[in-house]
Amino acid sequence: MAKKPLNIGMVGYGFMGRTHSNAFSQVGHFFNVPFRPVLKATCARNADRAKAFAEQWGYESIETDWRKLVERKDIDVIDIASPNDTHFEIAIAAAKAGKMVMCEKPLGRSATESRQMVEAVEKAKVPNMVWYNYRRVPAVTLAKQLIDEGKLGKIFHYRAKFLQDWTISKDLPQGGQGLWRLDASVAGSGVTGDLLAHCIDTAMWLNGGITKVSGMTETFIKERHHNITGKTEPVRIDDASLFLARFANGSLASFEATRYARGHKALYTFEINGENASIFWDLHDLHRLQYFDHRDEGRTRGWRSVHITDGDHPYMDKWWVPGLQIGYEHTFIHQVADFLGAVGGGKPAAPTFREALATDLVTDAVLKSAKTGQWESAN
Amino acid sequence: MAKKPLNIGMVGYGFMGRTHSNAFSQVGHFFNVPFRPVLKATCARNADRAKAFAEQWGYESIETDWRKLVERKDIDVIDIASPNDTHFEIAIAAAKAGKMVMCEKPLGRSATESRQMVEAVEKAKVPNMVWYNYRRVPAVTLAKQLIDEGKLGKIFHYRAKFLQDWTISKDLPQGGQGLWRLDASVAGSGVTGDLLAHCIDTAMWLNGGITKVSGMTETFIKERHHNITGKTEPVRIDDASLFLARFANGSLASFEATRYARGHKALYTFEINGENASIFWDLHDLHRLQYFDHRDEGRTRGWRSVHITDGDHPYMDKWWVPGLQIGYEHTFIHQVADFLGAVGGGKPAAPTFREALATDLVTDAVLKSAKTGQWESAN
Amino acid sequence: MAKKPLNIGMVGYGFMGRTHSNAFSQVGHFFNVPFRPVLKATCARNADRAKAFAEQWGYESIETDWRKLVERKDIDVIDIASPNDTHFEIAIAAAKAGKMVMCEKPLGRSATESRQMVEAVEKAKVPNMVWYNYRRVPAVTLAKQLIDEGKLGKIFHYRAKFLQDWTISKDLPQGGQGLWRLDASVAGSGVTGDLLAHCIDTAMWLNGGITKVSGMTETFIKERHHNITGKTEPVRIDDASLFLARFANGSLASFEATRYARGHKALYTFEINGENASIFWDLHDLHRLQYFDHRDEGRTRGWRSVHITDGDHPYMDKWWVPGLQIGYEHTFIHQVADFLGAVGGGKPAAPTFREALATDLVTDAVLKSAKTGQWESAN
Amino acid sequence: MAKKPLNIGMVGYGFMGRTHSNAFSQVGHFFNVPFRPVLKATCARNADRAKAFAEQWGYESIETDWRKLVERKDIDVIDIASPNDTHFEIAIAAAKAGKMVMCEKPLGRSATESRQMVEAVEKAKVPNMVWYNYRRVPAVTLAKQLIDEGKLGKIFHYRAKFLQDWTISKDLPQGGQGLWRLDASVAGSGVTGDLLAHCIDTAMWLNGGITKVSGMTETFIKERHHNITGKTEPVRIDDASLFLARFANGSLASFEATRYARGHKALYTFEINGENASIFWDLHDLHRLQYFDHRDEGRTRGWRSVHITDGDHPYMDKWWVPGLQIGYEHTFIHQVADFLGAVGGGKPAAPTFREALATDLVTDAVLKSAKTGQWESAN
Repeated sequence: MAKKPLNIGMVGYGFMGRTHSNAFSQVGHFFNVPFRPVLKATCARNADRAKAFAEQWGYESIETDWRKLVERKDIDVIDIASPNDTHFEIAIAAAKAGKMVMCEKPLGRSATESRQMVEAVEKAKVPNMVWYNYRRVPAVTLAKQLIDEGKLGKIFHYRAKFLQDWTISKDLPQGGQGLWRLDASVAGSGVTGDLLAHCIDTAMWLNGGITKVSGMTETFIKERHHNITGKTEPVRIDDASLFLARFANGSLASFEATRYARGHKALYTFEINGENASIFWDLHDLHRLQYFDHRDEGRTRGWRSVHITDGDHPYMDKWWVPGLQIGYEHTFIHQVADFLGAVGGGKPAAPTFREALATDLVTDAVLKSAKTGQWESAN
Repeated sequence: MAKKPLNIGMVGYGFMGRTHSNAFSQVGHFFNVPFRPVLKATCARNADRAKAFAEQWGYESIETDWRKLVERKDIDVIDIASPNDTHFEIAIAAAKAGKMVMCEKPLGRSATESRQMVEAVEKAKVPNMVWYNYRRVPAVTLAKQLIDEGKLGKIFHYRAKFLQDWTISKDLPQGGQGLWRLDASVAGSGVTGDLLAHCIDTAMWLNGGITKVSGMTETFIKERHHNITGKTEPVRIDDASLFLARFANGSLASFEATRYARGHKALYTFEINGENASIFWDLHDLHRLQYFDHRDEGRTRGWRSVHITDGDHPYMDKWWVPGLQIGYEHTFIHQVADFLGAVGGGKPAAPTFREALATDLVTDAVLKSAKTGQWESAN
Repeated sequence: MAKKPLNIGMVGYGFMGRTHSNAFSQVGHFFNVPFRPVLKATCARNADRAKAFAEQWGYESIETDWRKLVERKDIDVIDIASPNDTHFEIAIAAAKAGKMVMCEKPLGRSATESRQMVEAVEKAKVPNMVWYNYRRVPAVTLAKQLIDEGKLGKIFHYRAKFLQDWTISKDLPQGGQGLWRLDASVAGSGVTGDLLAHCIDTAMWLNGGITKVSGMTETFIKERHHNITGKTEPVRIDDASLFLARFANGSLASFEATRYARGHKALYTFEINGENASIFWDLHDLHRLQYFDHRDEGRTRGWRSVHITDGDHPYMDKWWVPGLQIGYEHTFIHQVADFLGAVGGGKPAAPTFREALATDLVTDAVLKSAKTGQWESAN
Repeated sequence: MAKKPLNIGMVGYGFMGRTHSNAFSQVGHFFNVPFRPVLKATCARNADRAKAFAEQWGYESIETDWRKLVERKDIDVIDIASPNDTHFEIAIAAAKAGKMVMCEKPLGRSATESRQMVEAVEKAKVPNMVWYNYRRVPAVTLAKQLIDEGKLGKIFHYRAKFLQDWTISKDLPQGGQGLWRLDASVAGSGVTGDLLAHCIDTAMWLNGGITKVSGMTETFIKERHHNITGKTEPVRIDDASLFLARFANGSLASFEATRYARGHKALYTFEINGENASIFWDLHDLHRLQYFDHRDEGRTRGWRSVHITDGDHPYMDKWWVPGLQIGYEHTFIHQVADFLGAVGGGKPAAPTFREALATDLVTDAVLKSAKTGQWESAN
């Protein structure tokens, strides 16, 4: 069963370049997918870095200009894992060149950018997907299944937060290698686009559309040294962002993201309260789902800590044996597996650019509301 | 050391009547306080119920009209444990009669009522206290100490919620014995006054004043049978209430209370994130404090689950031996101990009526904001 | 409903004197029992201490010689809360005097003593009970119900431990006020009688008799200053005691107790694994029961953290409202309630002296096995 | 930096064949190691299975007779991932052929086999290692570091268990594909060699040698259908195995393994109590280490839940960013990284065959003690 090769052209070699490369390398070892991803080329402006990355991951060739990568005939998929300010141009060019496009989240730096990117891929009719990887945590996928089966009943509440603490120090610079997330011109926004976007994508996937929001943001450290300009400059991203929301199904929600929550590194959590059952999940123990079912007998009713490592849990029949957990990187492998399956089956690979645009509409509304002090429409 | 008796006149015989009576009965067994509370009289409109309650708790006499209780010369303290709509009149009359006044929370049904109650006790110069008992959970008192000592450093975030699930059924009536919390005319508001008031009292005690809020409320079940009128009537309380807030110290906050969070009975939680340390507490495991100290060595840094049962924890030297936990009722015993100590020492017993008014100003602002869709000032 | 008084004569004023006195004081406030315990007299060799204790708890009189207490006509119940070396004589004298006898655990310092105590109460036909209070933790009582209903199916494994850390310091003396537990002549044994006895009582209540054991003990600190003799003396108690066991039902067990487990104050835990379900409980969070039911649907199967605060949990309809926890002292109140109910109904009040003897047979076998290096019969 | 290739010859294609193959594939993506493992050949008696496995993992060739694999000049390392009854012959032949040998645990089916295997590799002076992978869980490695640095002080207690529930059903056959662990002739023993061996390896690594043991075993299901013979046959493995032990450093220990602990899939836990600090770890949340340090200030002292995802945790600087967890398979990758580093540096790669023999001496002593009812020497 020699599988059809699918040639990957990767842009970016940082944190996300690694998670994607790993996913392409690993998917065939564990999943029976219709394509065999081939690490054809990686692209970085700095040739030495591109070479080192290519050697480490086994890319066959390098490029130092993404335009050349996009033009190459031997590339089937352009995967964009570079900083946010590059997504727009590359995605549109790739779509025009007829390539499949995979793009790190958030899609654009704003819904304005994202809308054009959606138009480009839809016009070109190329498979497209945004790397909202947390949908593919098995516990989160199970949550989706339980909700879709109606186990929770009518939903009353949704609450999510994404807490980090890595920017508390005043001495941390903005900008430059690995720190572009603090530079608004590159990142677009701060935690709203970086962290809340994840929360919102999951939330709308699980609980449907968000109609309106009331937000509040803060930048705790007003100025930081900028690594590239070499000067102390105003910080223009949001360090913390909270919002209340209404879902179209009537449920109430609160969302929060911050990089100033001491003690939390990547504590993405969500909880959903339905008439009959509730669900809680937490990225720091991503292999567990907390589930409460009110239909259990009263005396022994309690939150169940479900260890998501059994063969009947999503994706888990592909891994080890019950009791043995997987980790963060596996979510990307699952996403590639789903992408390849979707492409092979001629179906859209979720989340599409269009779905990711819906998330950007919410993040834009949050940022707007934080300025106007008003509730803002989110769709 | 024969202690001076302090004669208690209790109004109410429900849930709170029991917690207060227990506190008065128990305080002398464990705390060295300057007074000996004497259960002099209990008061209820229904004489049989008053008698049964008096017999169970050892009250020496009963009254069926609170006005008579207030007039009795042999009563030192009027303790108001009856539904919210009775607080206003009784407290003011008791103050005028020169009695010390202890009042269940919330103080009034609105800040308008509360303000007059404050004026009454301050004019009469009588000791006064509101039963925000959660301040006296040893773990919460320890949190206060740690914050006051500066262990957390600058505070960035405060988040609190109080989740219950007891009103999800459509068949639950409003009004009548034990259900007056669903009747807005008696309760004043729904979860805002019942649950958020607790969260706000603790929050302002720990983190200072709240300046502005943006709120959202919902009444999921619009009509319920009313036990007293015998008719189906509109539900006018809030079933759920969420708000974002700013504290005077610049920190950002989110608060939420609901009676529609399946799986939670009385899950009052708060978390505070400071520059150097963070704290989390949870009423469902009230004898634990979660504490994270960033100054711990990196490799072994983690959230500490502090089992608050040692002699060096607040109040705990009075109870058993390390490892053995206390429960909910003890918070009231601690509050009586503190009240008696304060009265003996000629000091105000916190939280005073004035402090409780500050909480009502916030809850009023939340309810107003939920109607106006605007941020509202909370002080 | 004026209840019949039951006059209590209490021996001892230490930790257990307090828990028992509290139980007698509180039971009538919460439980509908056929008797009203009256704190008639307390007894201690030191008259000042007896007086102070009587004043604090409301005992009507004091004695300084337990023999006089036993002889008093106005005493119905002798409650023995004094150190282990006093149990034997007092219990036998009380039985002979026709008193009901309640005795702190362990019953005697050895099964030899205990056997004679059993004979005395059975000959005198007086109600008798030993304060193995942990049976009356609501979560533990629920465990008993679930097992008796067959929810676990065939039992394969039982494991229990009781971990403390309060004697690690070499500077802690043995003997004298509060430290008699380190003096073998008073205590009988170390952790075997003090801690393992609790584990064994619960275990045999839940899982039936133990047939044989293989034990190991250790005394880490070989000599300590003795407060009474004023000299450094050999320590003759066991600091740690572990044993493997077989139950009559074929299940395998391991037990452990120590006072050298840094980080644990009173971590009594047990776990039972049955064919269909498993149970875990932990004294540090005594208001929770962990329950796993294999019959739950596979995908959402997990350990349930049951918050034992609902009205359908054992004893809990007598306390507060769902979500609000009780603590350690309540187990004694439950035991008094059960004792009074049993006496009122003419039934034995478990655990009887005879049941407690069975526990002592196991602890004796453990100590013997630790010496012989052989498996020893435990019944 | 073109790395020197190291040609792997893999025997086995089951669960362990997958974990090892994954480790060889992944190590170069994350670790800077002196060799580049090349998946040269895989070996299985069934050619179709060998081919399928080779295709899935990228092995260049296959063999159907391990003797041929051992003879191949182009193979540097023989990795034995086949059932226990094959380890002995293959390892000795590989050593004689001068190959490096990596062997799944347990080394032999008994210490008798293992001793000869040790002699073979030591005589041949070939690098050798046994896959006790749990040493390379970052949390476990951190535990080792903390102990070696003296953070715990004198050790009093060690307790470990490994609980599973996969063989409770009477209908599960013994023998055949994936079920050889129930067939004593293949496996050697049951949970003693399969699960306790892991616990013992970790324990002796962390806490030094074990001197004597007292064991107890049970086979709950006495007969099972055998897949290969097609008959119902006696079950000769141990389903459960418990033992008490003494370490050379004087600490006391209890160990337990079973496949009849309902609710646990692979719950390997250990706890170590030292004079100053204690450690707890649990395979079901392998990315956390529980740490209690008595030197913390009393009021805020508590068990720390250390989320082992930071760059200063062992191995974790090679993976993602703080907060993002790794899983089970990574322990094998770490072990390969350490093996390659050791070989490159001319040092032994722990655990060596000799270290694994020490574990087998303990498991043999446990099985012997379970038969004799005596304490047995374990070294």
